[in-house]
Amino acid sequence: MKVNIHEVCPRDGFQSMPAFDKDTKVKIINRLVKCGFHELEVTSFVSPRAVPQLKDADEVISEIDRSQPVTLRALVPNERGLERAHALGIKKLKLMLSGSDSHSLYNANATTFDALERYRSVVKKATTYNINMTGSIAVAFGCPYEGDLPVKRHEEICDKYEQLGITKVSLADTTGMGNPHNVSKILRHLMKSFPHFTFTIHLHNTRGMAFANALAALEEGVKDFDSSTGGIGGCPYAPNASGNIATEDLVHGFEEMGIDTGVNLDRVLDVARYLEDIFPDQVDSFLLKAGKAKSLHKAPGRQRIK
Amino acid sequence: MKVNIHEVCPRDGFQSMPAFDKDTKVKIINRLVKCGFHELEVTSFVSPRAVPQLKDADEVISEIDRSQPVTLRALVPNERGLERAHALGIKKLKLMLSGSDSHSLYNANATTFDALERYRSVVKKATTYNINMTGSIAVAFGCPYEGDLPVKRHEEICDKYEQLGITKVSLADTTGMGNPHNVSKILRHLMKSFPHFTFTIHLHNTRGMAFANALAALEEGVKDFDSSTGGIGGCPYAPNASGNIATEDLVHGFEEMGIDTGVNLDRVLDVARYLEDIFPDQVDSFLLKAGKAKSLHKAPGRQRIK
Repeated sequence: MKVNIHEVCPRDGFQSMPAFDKDTKVKIINRLVKCGFHELEVTSFVSPRAVPQLKDADEVISEIDRSQPVTLRALVPNERGLERAHALGIKKLKLMLSGSDSHSLYNANATTFDALERYRSVVKKATTYNINMTGSIAVAFGCPYEGDLPVKRHEEICDKYEQLGITKVSLADTTGMGNPHNVSKILRHLMKSFPHFTFTIHLHNTRGMAFANALAALEEGVKDFDSSTGGIGGCPYAPNASGNIATEDLVHGFEEMGIDTGVNLDRVLDVARYLEDIFPDQVDSFLLKAGKAKSLHKAPGRQRIK
Repeated sequence: MKVNIHEVCPRDGFQSMPAFDKDTKVKIINRLVKCGFHELEVTSFVSPRAVPQLKDADEVISEIDRSQPVTLRALVPNERGLERAHALGIKKLKLMLSGSDSHSLYNANATTFDALERYRSVVKKATTYNINMTGSIAVAFGCPYEGDLPVKRHEEICDKYEQLGITKVSLADTTGMGNPHNVSKILRHLMKSFPHFTFTIHLHNTRGMAFANALAALEEGVKDFDSSTGGIGGCPYAPNASGNIATEDLVHGFEEMGIDTGVNLDRVLDVARYLEDIFPDQVDSFLLKAGKAKSLHKAPGRQRIK
């Protein structure tokens, strides 16, 4: 079995850390492009006022290594962002959308459907630029203000996406409220109602269930998984949000189970250690602490205490 | 669906922390007995030289609240331990055994089968005392020195246990090397070969897969799960061992999925916070940091940045 890993550290991670210099960003991304990811979310072309950590997105993208066989994608909130991405030759963009109105109002200053409607012109122009668009549904497996979203809500959002010509949607467990039961339930429903869609899943390990949720999604047929090297990243507009599932933990878990990720785990761990050196308080993953299950130790012999 | 939670903090947790006073131990246990656990592993009757943290086991057990409807169990390594447990009226005991020879040599100064053989007299005497005995297999899902154990090994150990009259066995992922694939594989095999056995599973979240492993075990028919409030505990004789899966995380995950644990999660969280106050560096759980998924927040309204 084969899955696709989408690395989001340069967007989801960088935006949740204190701002740091462009050259370091380029260095990190240039290591990530060589890890064997299916896609790499390199930045978000948002207003520097909203996310000052990514204000140098254009310079960063213009300097990174573009020679590797990984699809670069970015987030855009509006036409201005689209133009910036287009100028830099990014061919895959993702729209951010909250599944609940209360999260959307705080995150995007508009209800879910108002925010979606505002994307109409962005998507139209992207088509003329031959840019591949992906939708998303944040708080898909639980909103910190509203609780569980009824699956009817996901369906309505997917319907609207389809009307815009979008059939790729990322479902995010933004504040880690999901559990394998509701992940399965929602995906089973959506895969049946929208069999021509491709769903990506974006997990946070807030309550220790991220890997179990990934397996539940896999079981329902999802093949595309977001993760962040070093586990960095969260949601600036969600209370108690903790880090994304760490790429090294997700890849290690899958590979231990015999599921092919195409990712070079040792390279990912090298990047994670590099990140840890720079941001010791932001990086957190199981693999960084414990090492791979396959890395055995020398047997110590008989017990010292007799 | 109903599962049984076996709390191990007073044994697995206490033995891995710096030694502390008897009265605090009694206080912690007296809070745990009211949480609704199926079983509570209250101590280990080992040599004070081997585990000085538990040297006051007899005094602790003689002072705790015995009025609650929870089965108290303890670990015993030998006849001396059995006598101590019997004198205190403990009716359920567990034998510690490593599944691999190298782990067993370091842990018990004997190979697996030599260690098992030494238990013969303990089990015989326990029968005359009408004490219920449980076996165990540490490093069942991976040994840090030998890697994966072949399932033939588990079978041989279970055969020997059966010869001793023991049909309850706890399988421990002592250093968190297990993954849902090998947990399923081993359990499926054992449940088929030993259908009259009851298997308990004891998980560590060393590599982020504990909850997924619990679900894999549940899927194979396991109903009994060890966990430790506050996630404290490890294995003193295993490198890179990290904490047990936290009771609050396991119970929360199960309950979110509609699986009845019979445990009062709020009481467990109270104990976890109490432990955190006393041992801030030893306690670690997702729930303590993030709170329950069902604990919603007040919607903040529109975004501040327009």
